[in-house]
Amino acid sequence: MTDRFRVTYRIFAPDRAAAMLRAQGIALEQTVEIPREVVPRGFIEDVILGRVEDLGREGEGCFRATISYSPESCGAELPQLLNVIFGNSSIQKGIKVTGLELGPLAEVFAGPRFGIAGLRRLARTPAGPLIAPVLKPQGSSAERLAEIAYICARSGAHIVKEDHGLSDQPCAPFRERVDRITAAVARANAETGNACLYFAGLAGHSADLDGHAAHARAAGVDGLLVMPGLFGFDLVNRLARDKTLGLPIMTHPSFLGPYVLSGDTGFTHAMMFGTLQRLAGADISVFPNVGGRFGFSAQECTEIARACQDPGGIGPPMMPGPGGGMTPERADEMVAMYGPDTMFLLGGSLLRHGDAMGEVIADLRRRVTPRD
Amino acid sequence: MTDRFRVTYRIFAPDRAAAMLRAQGIALEQTVEIPREVVPRGFIEDVILGRVEDLGREGEGCFRATISYSPESCGAELPQLLNVIFGNSSIQKGIKVTGLELGPLAEVFAGPRFGIAGLRRLARTPAGPLIAPVLKPQGSSAERLAEIAYICARSGAHIVKEDHGLSDQPCAPFRERVDRITAAVARANAETGNACLYFAGLAGHSADLDGHAAHARAAGVDGLLVMPGLFGFDLVNRLARDKTLGLPIMTHPSFLGPYVLSGDTGFTHAMMFGTLQRLAGADISVFPNVGGRFGFSAQECTEIARACQDPGGIGPPMMPGPGGGMTPERADEMVAMYGPDTMFLLGGSLLRHGDAMGEVIADLRRRVTPRD
Repeated sequence: MTDRFRVTYRIFAPDRAAAMLRAQGIALEQTVEIPREVVPRGFIEDVILGRVEDLGREGEGCFRATISYSPESCGAELPQLLNVIFGNSSIQKGIKVTGLELGPLAEVFAGPRFGIAGLRRLARTPAGPLIAPVLKPQGSSAERLAEIAYICARSGAHIVKEDHGLSDQPCAPFRERVDRITAAVARANAETGNACLYFAGLAGHSADLDGHAAHARAAGVDGLLVMPGLFGFDLVNRLARDKTLGLPIMTHPSFLGPYVLSGDTGFTHAMMFGTLQRLAGADISVFPNVGGRFGFSAQECTEIARACQDPGGIGPPMMPGPGGGMTPERADEMVAMYGPDTMFLLGGSLLRHGDAMGEVIADLRRRVTPRD
Repeated sequence: MTDRFRVTYRIFAPDRAAAMLRAQGIALEQTVEIPREVVPRGFIEDVILGRVEDLGREGEGCFRATISYSPESCGAELPQLLNVIFGNSSIQKGIKVTGLELGPLAEVFAGPRFGIAGLRRLARTPAGPLIAPVLKPQGSSAERLAEIAYICARSGAHIVKEDHGLSDQPCAPFRERVDRITAAVARANAETGNACLYFAGLAGHSADLDGHAAHARAAGVDGLLVMPGLFGFDLVNRLARDKTLGLPIMTHPSFLGPYVLSGDTGFTHAMMFGTLQRLAGADISVFPNVGGRFGFSAQECTEIARACQDPGGIGPPMMPGPGGGMTPERADEMVAMYGPDTMFLLGGSLLRHGDAMGEVIADLRRRVTPRD
């Protein structure tokens, strides 16, 4: 049926009959949450109740169930869509969300506003990967962070992005920081003729975020970094839909780890750091690169990138933003792995180079820029 | 040191030296997120950088590390406090958060506004557990939900609570539902002389929530049900701090499962459904009872209840709200397990009784009401 959206779950069960029982349990749990025999006849049974559309075997003790739901369950609200996809079932072991087909909801959830093409236009970089050093550490003054931003932008960074831990702290309050860093990046851009973009880390009390975002926009920020794990995915969606704001959104994985770290609960890496970010409307999804201190495998990272870049996904393709491990020596290998439609974060190890930080960035930019 | 807050982590590592390295890694990761050797001297190294205060052995391959952080890392913001406690470390396997001592932040995070005592005052029930049937299923009209609410309130429910899946759907939009149900509960209360409380499920687009909450307050709602897993913990905090709103908050565990289901990531059950809810300012924390379809153990449930009710916790004690399994036959056993300062949810199985639903509630209320 095309009037329903579909969610695919990996279900761990000893045999097909047990898997079917679990699938039917999910269909109840995620909608009516009452025993099957008391589901009211008519609209609730026929439309609202989840429907097991398909059940296939994935491997030993492992099945793939597709369950369809009515848009009437969630309307146009992202939190309620997530609630229907996995709200209560997230509390049961042996269920992992592996896929989402929006069906009729594709009209409601348009995905990234800017996407890869929009980011390239803003950064005036029609081809090749984007290099994105991170402004840190926490505890630095706004003045110091602006100095680092200037060095990075001056040296050829495509994007400078704030560390997700900068928040709205006394030593570098959000608004002061944003004012200083936009000025520093604008000065560098005036000197180089480049269009380095500055993404400010949106943080504070939840009631202050819209005001902060408007301030950032007025100050000349080019994009916002948002943590859906801490503020909810609907913050991403709200900002992405806001035409007055009109800024691209980069999402950060803080606090989202437990959704992917366990084999038998949560989401696949591709769903969490690709599909869900794109569904919310993010334009870039940051995640930990293989080989660093987070333990994601090359396959998990490649699958995330594919979910971000897939032309058949939700809305226009978005950029994966792997963090960690990018050095001039590894540039070729990493571009080969992720493809050119990727933003490579340069994290804390950049600070090891001290005053030579700019040279590393310049070297990297040369290496990743396609030769005509 | 009393000027820092402390977080306790369970760390999985082969030996003490490896555990110490991981603890030091967390102290870096959760604050400066740069290599140790480039942490700037002075304020950042001395104050901002996390500090390993203690490391003890918990068992084979399992250690307990206490790390202290400066309030300067998070200021007065709950999202940033959670970011410092577990933001990036949530993405590393083998780390589980087991404890939080607010220290100087106790002044900032006052915990539940109402707590057990406040709820008892509102419900005019000075002793004994509270009985709380759930209004469902999704797909029902506002009129039908109001009928069920009336039956429940008329029969002696202390609280009627909306199902977390009702949201703001076309068949029963939030504001229409709230208007009808407050009227139905008020009518029942006028007839019985009781003070049954109605908790409405706050949902919708994130930008609509404050308006919805104000509408609910004006309509005469007694409390709000909030899902921090979908909207962020700061929504709970924002509502709890809102003196004009002045409503108690009940939190629901939707979408939070992966934080507790895995042994080597996330939070303990007591931290997630006790400490964190109390930190955010919730007055009642709903969680799945032992023996139902969610697989929580009796010990996990008891630990959640203890974290909610502990007089030494954050702010005044709050009520645990175990859901599932409560029947007249099991009432004594469940009250013995959780203690009288507990709200017992009556979920979907109540609908099995059809028109006799009210009699089950009345029977339960009689059984749990202390005899003078």
